Amino acid sequence: MALAFWYEFASTYSYLAAMRVEEEGRSRGIEVEWRPFLLGPIFKRQGWESSPFEVYPLKGLYMWRDVERQCERYGLPFMRPEDFPQNGLLAARLAFIGCAEGWTPAFSSAVYQAEFGEGQDISRPELLAGILIDLVLDADALFARAGSAEVKAAFKAQGAEVERCGLFGTPSFVASDGEFFWGDDRMEQAFEWEARLG
Amino acid sequence: MALAFWYEFASTYSYLAAMRVEEEGRSRGIEVEWRPFLLGPIFKRQGWESSPFEVYPLKGLYMWRDVERQCERYGLPFMRPEDFPQNGLLAARLAFIGCAEGWTPAFSSAVYQAEFGEGQDISRPELLAGILIDLVLDADALFARAGSAEVKAAFKAQGAEVERCGLFGTPSFVASDGEFFWGDDRMEQAFEWEARLG
Repeated sequence: MALAFWYEFASTYSYLAAMRVEEEGRSRGIEVEWRPFLLGPIFKRQGWESSPFEVYPLKGLYMWRDVERQCERYGLPFMRPEDFPQNGLLAARLAFIGCAEGWTPAFSSAVYQAEFGEGQDISRPELLAGILIDLVLDADALFARAGSAEVKAAFKAQGAEVERCGLFGTPSFVASDGEFFWGDDRMEQAFEWEARLG
Repeated sequence: MALAFWYEFASTYSYLAAMRVEEEGRSRGIEVEWRPFLLGPIFKRQGWESSPFEVYPLKGLYMWRDVERQCERYGLPFMRPEDFPQNGLLAARLAFIGCAEGWTPAFSSAVYQAEFGEGQDISRPELLAGILIDLVLDADALFARAGSAEVKAAFKAQGAEVERCGLFGTPSFVASDGEFFWGDDRMEQAFEWEARLG
């Protein structure tokens, strides 16, 4: 049993889910497959040049208040970063590499903590390098791999799977049978669904 | 203590909330102020000619599945109507009249039951007349009032309040202190907020 957790580093609601998903999976005995990807290409196909929270200001205004309230409920730190949405391309490519090596959950949680817990700029390579070093990983080697044609192509190739699953936003949770759930508010239901597939 | 419940008859997620909000209010001792209104003008200002679930097909596809799942969770009937989004203008004007007379909750629940519980077309005046008659109301007189310049103007004048509250979708819940919550998923939190204002 495994539940795929699709997330985007620029997404505030992905932050809420990312900080809770491992514990939720552990307590239910369901493995979580972390799937970092980019929403940009999906948004562009819908005619948006930025996050819908930027395109629709009222929705954006509400989102920040809602995320603040949810952080309080969940006991998560919250600090709104100056820049939004942030460029999470390098972070996502690094997280993508880590999927095969098992450090993606720890890395991604640290990136989110910096971004929305401390309001830092996660497009800064130094910040990402610091996180990798804290995880006792070889930052230089990983940066080189993240910039390689091979990783770039493999990361991009996920787009076909995103399309097959019908994903249009994050966080999204895809169960083993293809059933999918969108939004931090559906995380528990997604786990319940996967548990029933047993 | 009162929580304002803003809803639109074409909205599937308003259906989910409308069928639960009275019981939730009763059990918490919080009055619910039903506020029927139209999303069309708001959507138009965002550049949408129809429901976002029509404008963004992937989101629409997901919405129907999600609403079906939520109905199952809540024990609500669900039948997808052929037409979507439906024209709920007449229903909304009638519900608006009922606010001062106390029959809006019963009327609105019956309209939603017909629309999303039975897949019927709520733009049909005969259907609405049948609901009014079931509630022992004078359908002819109410239709005449719904078409009067006075009611039309008063209904439209709500737009200023919608703008003041910052509403951009439905269902929305506005607490006595102006704090607002969007979406069926936030209904319980909205009540909790209002309860704390005591």
